[in-house]
Amino acid sequence: MTNKGQILRLLNYKNLLKHLQTLGFKKVFSDNISDTLEISSSLVRKDFGNFGITGNRKGGYEIDSILGKIDDILGKDEIQKVVVIGVGRIGEALMKYQGFMKEGIQIVAGFDIDPSRINTEGNPPVLHNDKIADFIKENDIKICIMTVPQMVAKHTVDLLSATGIGGILNFTPIKFQSTAELTINNINIVHELENLIYVVNKQKDKE
Amino acid sequence: MTNKGQILRLLNYKNLLKHLQTLGFKKVFSDNISDTLEISSSLVRKDFGNFGITGNRKGGYEIDSILGKIDDILGKDEIQKVVVIGVGRIGEALMKYQGFMKEGIQIVAGFDIDPSRINTEGNPPVLHNDKIADFIKENDIKICIMTVPQMVAKHTVDLLSATGIGGILNFTPIKFQSTAELTINNINIVHELENLIYVVNKQKDKE
Repeated sequence: MTNKGQILRLLNYKNLLKHLQTLGFKKVFSDNISDTLEISSSLVRKDFGNFGITGNRKGGYEIDSILGKIDDILGKDEIQKVVVIGVGRIGEALMKYQGFMKEGIQIVAGFDIDPSRINTEGNPPVLHNDKIADFIKENDIKICIMTVPQMVAKHTVDLLSATGIGGILNFTPIKFQSTAELTINNINIVHELENLIYVVNKQKDKE
Repeated sequence: MTNKGQILRLLNYKNLLKHLQTLGFKKVFSDNISDTLEISSSLVRKDFGNFGITGNRKGGYEIDSILGKIDDILGKDEIQKVVVIGVGRIGEALMKYQGFMKEGIQIVAGFDIDPSRINTEGNPPVLHNDKIADFIKENDIKICIMTVPQMVAKHTVDLLSATGIGGILNFTPIKFQSTAELTINNINIVHELENLIYVVNKQKDKE
């Protein structure tokens, strides 16, 4: 299962099921999930079948059991160490984001070229860019978040690629393509906002 | 054209073409675009046809002309005013993000409930949450970015919905559904990172 849509569905199932657990639910039906997530219930059952989750349409699925399987699939047994490249406002906000730790993701360092942002005593520390390659190798870092300015994005990808890192979550406006060795997922916040503006304006025009 | 995939492609065309312009390109071929964006060239030609962009496989397309059409389609003739709800680290970073203005998006205010974050003299100002409804109505705001804590996300959506706003770009981990009146697009950064971790770990396992 390496399809991005499938993994995101899996994460959505997990989110929803954890929420239902807090409400006291023990079991869930594929129809409940499909209604809430706006997908077909047959797709939910197919996903669960693929993950080896047993249950049925009539009796429902044990939430505990589904969550256990999902964590197994996601390999949640070890902490995932991630670094942030480019500690401007967005990079800094992500470095300190509280939501990662409860999913087993730890931001272990940030890197920047600006001496005023370096803070080796910080938690996590901010180190100079010239330490990136050694840090990634010594700490076996597989994933980084890239929040550098657009004009140095290409250069940064080249630099990261040479370190042997496996994945980049790219927040710059430049869209990069993955290679066999390096997976790059792109989040373009400006595009997301432009898209929303377009949809809303079209809707207002219709009214 | 209200399909999200189509609009995001349009924005990707624009990004790429602007980049090519800086390199001195005047014309572009659908094959160049499709190779770079990893889509089929027939899809590029189909999109251009839908937008009313003329050109052909042999002679190529005038970049200036495509960019003009795209801006027309996106309604880029007026500044889009956007507010940020929840001025924590990520909200603050987005309020001050430089990349919006060049796309005609202006963040005109932030809102928070925490008195220590209120700054009515700021540029843009940060106002108290109890001003949200009046501000949205008085300034005809159609779009907001929601960066509140997860536990108040549902309450915030209800509050925003009552103001008549048209669109929310939701950065909380709660996935909200759009209604006929209110479009909600969800960006879940933790999920994006978890997805990347999963893909990279699978790849490393194979090696």
